[in-house]
Amino acid sequence: MELKNNLYTETGWEIFEREYEDEQMVTTGSNYLIGNGYLGYRGTFADWTANEYVACIVTDTYDMADGKWRELCNAPNGLYTRLEVDGERVTINKGEISNYRRGLNLREGLYSEEFTWKGNKGNKVHIETARFASYHNLHLIPFRYSFTVEKEAEITLVTGIDGVVWSLNGEHFKKYDLKKIDKYLAIETVTGERGIQLDVVEGYRLDGATPRFEKIIKEDRKILRELKFKLSPGTRVVLEKVISIYSSNDIKNPLDQAQKDLEKALQSTFTELREKNRANWINFWNRTDIKIKGDLKGQTALRFNLYHNRIATPAHSDRLPIGARGLSCQAYQGAAFWDQEIFNMPMFLYTSPETACNILKYRYHTLDGARKKARKLGYRGAFYAWVSGKTGEELCPSYFFKDVISGRKIHNHFNDWQIHISPDIAYAIWHYFQVTGDWNFIVNYGAEMIFEISRFLYSHAYFKKDKNRFEFIRLLGPDEYHENVDNNAFTNYQAKYTLERALDIYNKMKDENKKELEYLMEKIELTEKEIEDWKEMAELIYLPQPDEETLLIEQFDGYFDLEDTRPDELEKRLLDPGEYWGWPNGVAVETQVTKQADVIQLFCLHNIFSKGVMKANYDYYEPRTQHGSSLSPSAYSIIASQIGYVEEAYSYFIKSCTIDLYNTNKAVSGGTFIGGIHTAACGAAWQMVVFGFAGLKIDNDNLSFNPVLPSKWDEINFPLQYKNNRFNVVITKSQLKVKSSEENKETQKIRYKDDLTEIRPGDEVIIPF
Amino acid sequence: MELKNNLYTETGWEIFEREYEDEQMVTTGSNYLIGNGYLGYRGTFADWTANEYVACIVTDTYDMADGKWRELCNAPNGLYTRLEVDGERVTINKGEISNYRRGLNLREGLYSEEFTWKGNKGNKVHIETARFASYHNLHLIPFRYSFTVEKEAEITLVTGIDGVVWSLNGEHFKKYDLKKIDKYLAIETVTGERGIQLDVVEGYRLDGATPRFEKIIKEDRKILRELKFKLSPGTRVVLEKVISIYSSNDIKNPLDQAQKDLEKALQSTFTELREKNRANWINFWNRTDIKIKGDLKGQTALRFNLYHNRIATPAHSDRLPIGARGLSCQAYQGAAFWDQEIFNMPMFLYTSPETACNILKYRYHTLDGARKKARKLGYRGAFYAWVSGKTGEELCPSYFFKDVISGRKIHNHFNDWQIHISPDIAYAIWHYFQVTGDWNFIVNYGAEMIFEISRFLYSHAYFKKDKNRFEFIRLLGPDEYHENVDNNAFTNYQAKYTLERALDIYNKMKDENKKELEYLMEKIELTEKEIEDWKEMAELIYLPQPDEETLLIEQFDGYFDLEDTRPDELEKRLLDPGEYWGWPNGVAVETQVTKQADVIQLFCLHNIFSKGVMKANYDYYEPRTQHGSSLSPSAYSIIASQIGYVEEAYSYFIKSCTIDLYNTNKAVSGGTFIGGIHTAACGAAWQMVVFGFAGLKIDNDNLSFNPVLPSKWDEINFPLQYKNNRFNVVITKSQLKVKSSEENKETQKIRYKDDLTEIRPGDEVIIPF
Ligand SMILES: [Ca+2]
Ligand SMILES: [Ca+2]
Repeated sequence: MELKNNLYTETGWEIFEREYEDEQMVTTGSNYLIGNGYLGYRGTFADWTANEYVACIVTDTYDMADGKWRELCNAPNGLYTRLEVDGERVTINKGEISNYRRGLNLREGLYSEEFTWKGNKGNKVHIETARFASYHNLHLIPFRYSFTVEKEAEITLVTGIDGVVWSLNGEHFKKYDLKKIDKYLAIETVTGERGIQLDVVEGYRLDGATPRFEKIIKEDRKILRELKFKLSPGTRVVLEKVISIYSSNDIKNPLDQAQKDLEKALQSTFTELREKNRANWINFWNRTDIKIKGDLKGQTALRFNLYHNRIATPAHSDRLPIGARGLSCQAYQGAAFWDQEIFNMPMFLYTSPETACNILKYRYHTLDGARKKARKLGYRGAFYAWVSGKTGEELCPSYFFKDVISGRKIHNHFNDWQIHISPDIAYAIWHYFQVTGDWNFIVNYGAEMIFEISRFLYSHAYFKKDKNRFEFIRLLGPDEYHENVDNNAFTNYQAKYTLERALDIYNKMKDENKKELEYLMEKIELTEKEIEDWKEMAELIYLPQPDEETLLIEQFDGYFDLEDTRPDELEKRLLDPGEYWGWPNGVAVETQVTKQADVIQLFCLHNIFSKGVMKANYDYYEPRTQHGSSLSPSAYSIIASQIGYVEEAYSYFIKSCTIDLYNTNKAVSGGTFIGGIHTAACGAAWQMVVFGFAGLKIDNDNLSFNPVLPSKWDEINFPLQYKNNRFNVVITKSQLKVKSSEENKETQKIRYKDDLTEIRPGDEVIIPF
Repeated sequence: MELKNNLYTETGWEIFEREYEDEQMVTTGSNYLIGNGYLGYRGTFADWTANEYVACIVTDTYDMADGKWRELCNAPNGLYTRLEVDGERVTINKGEISNYRRGLNLREGLYSEEFTWKGNKGNKVHIETARFASYHNLHLIPFRYSFTVEKEAEITLVTGIDGVVWSLNGEHFKKYDLKKIDKYLAIETVTGERGIQLDVVEGYRLDGATPRFEKIIKEDRKILRELKFKLSPGTRVVLEKVISIYSSNDIKNPLDQAQKDLEKALQSTFTELREKNRANWINFWNRTDIKIKGDLKGQTALRFNLYHNRIATPAHSDRLPIGARGLSCQAYQGAAFWDQEIFNMPMFLYTSPETACNILKYRYHTLDGARKKARKLGYRGAFYAWVSGKTGEELCPSYFFKDVISGRKIHNHFNDWQIHISPDIAYAIWHYFQVTGDWNFIVNYGAEMIFEISRFLYSHAYFKKDKNRFEFIRLLGPDEYHENVDNNAFTNYQAKYTLERALDIYNKMKDENKKELEYLMEKIELTEKEIEDWKEMAELIYLPQPDEETLLIEQFDGYFDLEDTRPDELEKRLLDPGEYWGWPNGVAVETQVTKQADVIQLFCLHNIFSKGVMKANYDYYEPRTQHGSSLSPSAYSIIASQIGYVEEAYSYFIKSCTIDLYNTNKAVSGGTFIGGIHTAACGAAWQMVVFGFAGLKIDNDNLSFNPVLPSKWDEINFPLQYKNNRFNVVITKSQLKVKSSEENKETQKIRYKDDLTEIRPGDEVIIPF
């Protein structure tokens, strides 16, 4: 079926296009990305170069080239392959193209192209390619490039490594060593700032032709082979390549290891490697996939997002962040934001909790960065970086956007005023504990983080003696258009929640882990007095309450006094379409127009507000929200589901799931490139179904459901893991069916409205509505 | 002597020019202003009109014409007089001018012109004019216009009232009634917003000619007389006019009263009226003048400032503010800023304390406006208006400047973040008490103000539990380029001082005025708990201390982390010369460049810092100060005197005293007209000599001196009033001489360094250095 103009699916497991469109180059490069959490390789043609945004982004290669942005590096492109037929270059935007199909197989993470090319001399070449980023060995990308000709022809096949790659903010490599090692090609690079070695080794096998010779070409930052042979009609030539990539942050001798891995990989055929990778993906989908009946478009869009959430996530490591744009490009510095815990993590938490654990351990390993940031800004404890790379030190520059009218840089305060990142992490830690029951994690990691975050919050807060309450002053909430606000409801509620959990942990450890608690308190020099302080603060922290009459929660102090207007009205006030809407002088600053869900996002995290309150606030804030962030539509979808706005929930679901698929967001704002895959929205896709339509909540160790299905949908069907037990959930318009896996050990209570139902291992319960 | 190009004095009691300069029209209009605290009449030619900025600004006529700025109105111009000789208009910028002299006699507040005009037909006319704003009756301006011709000529003299006046922000009058009443002309106007009636009545006497007839001309907003006669050479024609101005805010029937006053005035000659006025001025100078020997330029500039400080001040009323531009134009809305208490008031306090008392009573009568503002912004007590008119309600618009690059308005926070205005008033109240000993004032007025200000401060402050201190967050200090700062040293010290004085007053009243205290506490619902709170806050308020090594006091939290650059460097970064340098995105915001004295201003008010500290801070802040405010140079002069930088003190003295005289400040900033007389600098002129060079301080009821004279000066000589006793102080390079007036009742102690000397009524002491 056609999803949109020139975008198709057949089964809901793939997306592909039937025509090549040059102007979609940036988008398709991101959308057709393959990856495995270690590297991401953009969906580009084999003969493309830096000009077409070819990139292979590798984790853990943070380096600064322009003195301003530290970002991940793009490795030299080891898949580079160029075909000439009778001296004529076979390429997608020259010649006559037919039988074109290009796209991504989501089920196994496979990118493929197929097309027939007709040149000026009349010969026709049929090309098929496929590649995937291996989950079996994360350092490998196997690639198959095959072709046939209609008439006999002289073939020149150039394949090797092209070191001229796209780089967003300057040249990262101060050195390119072009090497031929044994039968392999390699480029050894060294980054300019930090001296990281990033090496690519390439090997190949050729079937269906015997080149007259192999000529090695070394050009500027390129090492290539030229293979020449005569090809008869009907003979299929198959080039199978594998590239292997290692950096000196992975291993001491990256070049050696890359070569070893490559040698081993080349002992298997592409098909054998692909089968192994396929099995890995099938396992992922078995634990993660959500099946939707009755909506192939929604189904495909959903899987596209789950796919990208997976490949963005360095699940193999507990020391690497999920980039806000994953590994689809260098934008946002390959760094984690609050997106990681609040948007990306929940899918893993309920399906692959070991990955959620790694995500949180990353925050543990970056605790010193957070401590350093807190100290630098005059606070105690842990103030997590707004933009967090390897070490957790703040990567967010103070000057993020620029004023496109004056050309002056803008001092945004994402890094110093947007404090909710810290309690957001505390929230996720507790969420992890709630869902996994992994108390050891809390004892060994979570307690230290939550204590240090509480300490930070205490040192940040101000006490108003005349009002007998703690307040948070000078904040940025999730809605980034309003900087310098006080008592942002979202932040204050998150802070209180954090302090309460700190006290819970302290009390439980005092009972159950006395020694560990003593050790920890000594380690971080935590005093009983501080625990008392947190208790007082948890009690006296100011929480903006729903107004008695209107039920509205004010987003921050004074928000309702701002000009009440709408996003489309502000659009008209722009002097330049590229203007940043926010701080300090953008069109939204003095108005109630919000960039994204803020109070509504609060409802997503805290199940303590009545439906009436949620509805009143939804009705108020929704028309005032610009959705200038990809994090916004999902929150509206989830809350719309919960207040019975089911069709609106669906339309926000589609909006959120198609941000990248339909390329609806702008790639540049305030002069800064912000394109690529919006991984937060990808993670949110799962939440919109499970937290939104299925209405899943953890409620006193019960799995509570509150399902509603959009009119289109006949059924949703998804797996869940809760405290080492696995379940399958099927929701239709008339019933909820939960099956407890045979392997489960515990009986689980399921709540639907006021009814609790017990479900034993291997059993299935059906709750009719 | 020539003061600067085309500006002269003879005795130090006058300023005058010898050539007419068209491009100096705006400046000379302000500098040659006559006034009496009720009205100000700009220094313009009699035949000039709105185009030449003719204006007669009248107090207590606040009205809004453009929906944006409420300002004082300009009355119709009753002095309008035009001369034609043989049909040719006699005017300053046509014809050939000789014998020109125009200027101001400071000793008696008299503006005069004299020149000979030669027309195209060869006749010569010699004109002499004089006018003054009467202190005897504040509603009157007497005017004399006399002329002779060289050859016989046909004269047309047109004189009357021209209602077409300059108005900065729109047309204020919705009605102009042109009237002939008896032999007088009148224009009765009514303002559009508030329906204030503002009436001008004019009468005249003519000597030396008998007009053939008097023709009354009523044109649009003008009522004029045409007088025609033939004039022989050598005959002097003298037109003596008086105008009388009343508004309905002065009296119920302004027109009647104006007519009555006028009739009475016309019973005296111009010379008789002038003598009365002169006597009034002589009395003022006897109480106020500072004589400088050895520096006629400095002497003249100083007197120019004392003169303007007087005429700007509505000493006749305890319900009117001193405008930041006095009555020289409508800029700054004829409203009071902190300038009034900190810059204008001290001269009066030590010379005419009854005027200082009226200034402070104005703040008492506007207490409700301050209470209203505090409530509106979520505070308690009294938050005085940044821009304070009649009622004390906030006149300062939220959008004061505009971004000249984008054309967008700027939301400045002068009105809500610049809280130091309130403790500044408290400071002045206590200063008044210290100097006058007028405890009744404290009991009846001061206590209520200081209590309400303390209450405001308490409700504004935040307590940092982790630091056990009160802080002030999100401020604007005196340096307005840095908005949104925390713990501005100036503000925090002023706040602590206020709370301490509140406690002093409470304790003294508890002892001495128990009933009044009870009454007051009941009236303002003040509790003992609040007194306790203030005590705690006074103890625990955070005061930025001099750094132990550098001795520097940080202007606000984080100031030293800002880019360290200089004003001239920032000048180069301007994209447009008219750009506002401050909030939110101006060139100074992210730098240490300050608009004006801030820490240095703190030293002017609080005599608690060592010379070493003052010196270190002076050396640091001085090169970083742009002096973008006319309030700035005087603070530097005063502190320079105290730390022994005497010649630098002198050069800042000259800079401050000549802001208007030499027209050094720009008249438009960020798109807003801010020209006119800088009355704060006028008041500061007195302080630079008495607090700066003479080093006067009140120190435990002692008059303490620490004199230094600039090398040019041989002697300064000035009167002082302290607690109902009057003194004369003479300082030379080698001695301090203080004489106690014969009429004094008390013995006074004089301190010089560590020595205390008693001086009895009628005695004189000489302290050699
Ligand atoms: Ca709606
Ligand atoms: Ca200097």
